[in-house]
Amino acid sequence: MENSRAGAAAAAAHKWKFQGNDGLNTASALSIRSVLNMLNSNIDQNDTRVVVPLGHGDPSSFPSFRTTPVAEDGLVDALRSAKFNSYSSTVGILPARRAVSEYLSRDLPYTLSPDDVFMTVGCTQAIEIILTVLARPGANILLPRPGFPFYEARAAHCNLEVRYFDLLPEKGWEVDLKAVEDMSDENTMAMVIINPGNPCGNVFSYQHLKKIAETARKVGIMVITDEVYDHLAFGSTPFTPMGVFASIVPVLTVGSISKRWIVPGWRLGWLVTNDPDGIFKESGIVESIKGYLNISSDPPTFIQGGVPHILSKTTDEFFSRIIGVLKETADICDEKLKEIPCINCPNKPEGSMFVMVKLELSVLDGIKDDVDFCLKLAKEESVIIMPGIAVGLRNWLRITFAIEPSSLEDGLERMKAFCKRHTKS
Amino acid sequence: MENSRAGAAAAAAHKWKFQGNDGLNTASALSIRSVLNMLNSNIDQNDTRVVVPLGHGDPSSFPSFRTTPVAEDGLVDALRSAKFNSYSSTVGILPARRAVSEYLSRDLPYTLSPDDVFMTVGCTQAIEIILTVLARPGANILLPRPGFPFYEARAAHCNLEVRYFDLLPEKGWEVDLKAVEDMSDENTMAMVIINPGNPCGNVFSYQHLKKIAETARKVGIMVITDEVYDHLAFGSTPFTPMGVFASIVPVLTVGSISKRWIVPGWRLGWLVTNDPDGIFKESGIVESIKGYLNISSDPPTFIQGGVPHILSKTTDEFFSRIIGVLKETADICDEKLKEIPCINCPNKPEGSMFVMVKLELSVLDGIKDDVDFCLKLAKEESVIIMPGIAVGLRNWLRITFAIEPSSLEDGLERMKAFCKRHTKS
Ligand SMILES: Cc1ncc(COP(=O)(O)O)c(C=O)c1O
Ligand SMILES: Cc1ncc(COP(=O)(O)O)c(C=O)c1O
Repeated sequence: MENSRAGAAAAAAHKWKFQGNDGLNTASALSIRSVLNMLNSNIDQNDTRVVVPLGHGDPSSFPSFRTTPVAEDGLVDALRSAKFNSYSSTVGILPARRAVSEYLSRDLPYTLSPDDVFMTVGCTQAIEIILTVLARPGANILLPRPGFPFYEARAAHCNLEVRYFDLLPEKGWEVDLKAVEDMSDENTMAMVIINPGNPCGNVFSYQHLKKIAETARKVGIMVITDEVYDHLAFGSTPFTPMGVFASIVPVLTVGSISKRWIVPGWRLGWLVTNDPDGIFKESGIVESIKGYLNISSDPPTFIQGGVPHILSKTTDEFFSRIIGVLKETADICDEKLKEIPCINCPNKPEGSMFVMVKLELSVLDGIKDDVDFCLKLAKEESVIIMPGIAVGLRNWLRITFAIEPSSLEDGLERMKAFCKRHTKS
Repeated sequence: MENSRAGAAAAAAHKWKFQGNDGLNTASALSIRSVLNMLNSNIDQNDTRVVVPLGHGDPSSFPSFRTTPVAEDGLVDALRSAKFNSYSSTVGILPARRAVSEYLSRDLPYTLSPDDVFMTVGCTQAIEIILTVLARPGANILLPRPGFPFYEARAAHCNLEVRYFDLLPEKGWEVDLKAVEDMSDENTMAMVIINPGNPCGNVFSYQHLKKIAETARKVGIMVITDEVYDHLAFGSTPFTPMGVFASIVPVLTVGSISKRWIVPGWRLGWLVTNDPDGIFKESGIVESIKGYLNISSDPPTFIQGGVPHILSKTTDEFFSRIIGVLKETADICDEKLKEIPCINCPNKPEGSMFVMVKLELSVLDGIKDDVDFCLKLAKEESVIIMPGIAVGLRNWLRITFAIEPSSLEDGLERMKAFCKRHTKS
């Protein structure tokens, strides 16, 4: 290339005006992904054992969690039809919106309309959209602690203030409703719940959800319900969608096929207004959602085209199989953790893919805190788990049990050996 | 449902604190999509003729523009392998990044590394990312006029000031470089070019691109080059990627498979740093791109998994066929427009899928401006074209010629009849 070497030196020495954006670096430091990156880079490259990933909720690469061929067929047929190569409308294509409205209406006392549904690039984009819509100078939202840090990261990015209410371990991780009332003010827009729960593995009861609805109504805020783990409930409490209480309080549901179909890489989600009284429309929320969708990228059209097939044709046998494996791994997790003295599990998980456990630092030697624990565990045992601080609880741990049962046993055995080695004598 | 009717009435009457976000409504009003929605809603439902869509750049539903089976095979194989059901890394999976780096390097005097490539949800998300990274209080970027309004809409959303330099119709739509120099100041971060051009259908020459690079270098700003229409050049000027001049000025390329493969619904794009001197790294731009990706949704993993196959196995025969159809439709467009006295086309299109033409309002009766023209054309002839004001030039029109040749002739005939009917006698 002409002038390439001389040009190179000159370009490097030149004064350029642009520079990076510290705000983005700060917001992203809050993400699960960046914590995982840090832990993964701490793995000992000389350890010949396979890494056991108990850090994130993505079991899709394990044989026991392989998705159903029905879902694959839905996409392949849509793709091969060549009917879905075009841009989607910004709200999503009608067949997909209708399919999601029918799918969710099965569990509701009223019928959603396709117009209530907006197709998104995973639940992730649905969260991005609603937080962006709610952000305005001075506004705040209420988040659960512990929680899913993406909410905090996105809120930080759009200058939406966050306030935390506790989930109470001694009450099966129920919401501290008194705190919700106390911390709400004129600028509070919404509260977020995650049900089934990440990171706690709890499932809210019908009665507790009703109380949440009544509290939100009392303080005049909407409920954003993250049901990305919908129907992944395998304990004594059945899954109830928050939308059941939409006549008490306007409910915004975010969800996706990522977890129930074990295809997080497909990036297909939704944002749904449960709004029988038209409050979201009246208050301009619906208009703003559409406004932001107009300047956002959509989920691929052919994936949307496959949604009706996926949502209506997946067999109960597939769902039961996945629930069966989750129940089995939750049991393994619970039993193995009982054998580790420095770890205390207040509630056996009943849903989602995670459990929160308390680290008893006082019995450990040379472990400073939860992050130190996780970094050393990664280095010494090639096991990745999430430090509690990453989800809001210092000196707790978030463990994913949704992996192949044999790997889970292996990982928890290594963790047991690690704890034993580091226990005060 | 218990208490549903009484609850409903009560909920509607209740005082709720949340409300819509005017900023989003304003930003989205700038989008092509919202203008298209407006025009489409003006179509006469009683007109039995098929609507001729000359408003947007998506020919994928027309038989002449059907994508290659090679591309479909790439996706189907990736999907059926079940190797790509997991979350992607936030920057994109390595095979996809490598494939894009090799694909783009073919036309460059140096070799891109996979680390230069970030996989995005279409070129749309790539634009969103770079504008977000550049936004800071007081910062501005320079955009071409006429241009692609998504830049303006996204910049408005992230409070990035925009300034416009003209593309000069009398100079084949070249950049007014003097204006670029004059309007740059300490807070100018970047200039954007679109090549091949939307909306002008021009292709910048090697010499003009070099002058753009030198001007940007002189004022100390990066060049963002939107090459979403890369290789769609069918006139006398061959397509040259701006990255060729990366040793003069750091170049950020945004692109996708949407246009060259005619699959905009697949939502697969990229953001690429052409940065042989490491300036983007040094200035923190790369770190901020990664930071924003950490809090963004990714393109579906299996689509990324299909990228190596798509980029390396598509035959020249397919590309030539598409170029052939575009050449044919550009010719039809040029000839038909010459028959319409109230329309003046300063430059025959040589690339992309669009042409900009001037409306001679003085010869028309009862047509106020370009928007009025397009609204009435939609209503009376069921033909959709884009008013120039939507892309920055009042009383011009943007016409898409990338549709089935027979439909194009039909649409332009209707437009001719419309103009004749509205010409002053
Ligand atoms: C609580 C919660 N919400 C949302 C998401 C993102 O879901 P998706 O993969 O559909 O974007 C996750 C992913 O782990 C999650 O745990
Ligand atoms: C100039 C320009 N840039 C970017 C895009 C968006 O491309 P994609 O479909 O890959 O998101 C378009 C789409 O029309 C365009 O015309």
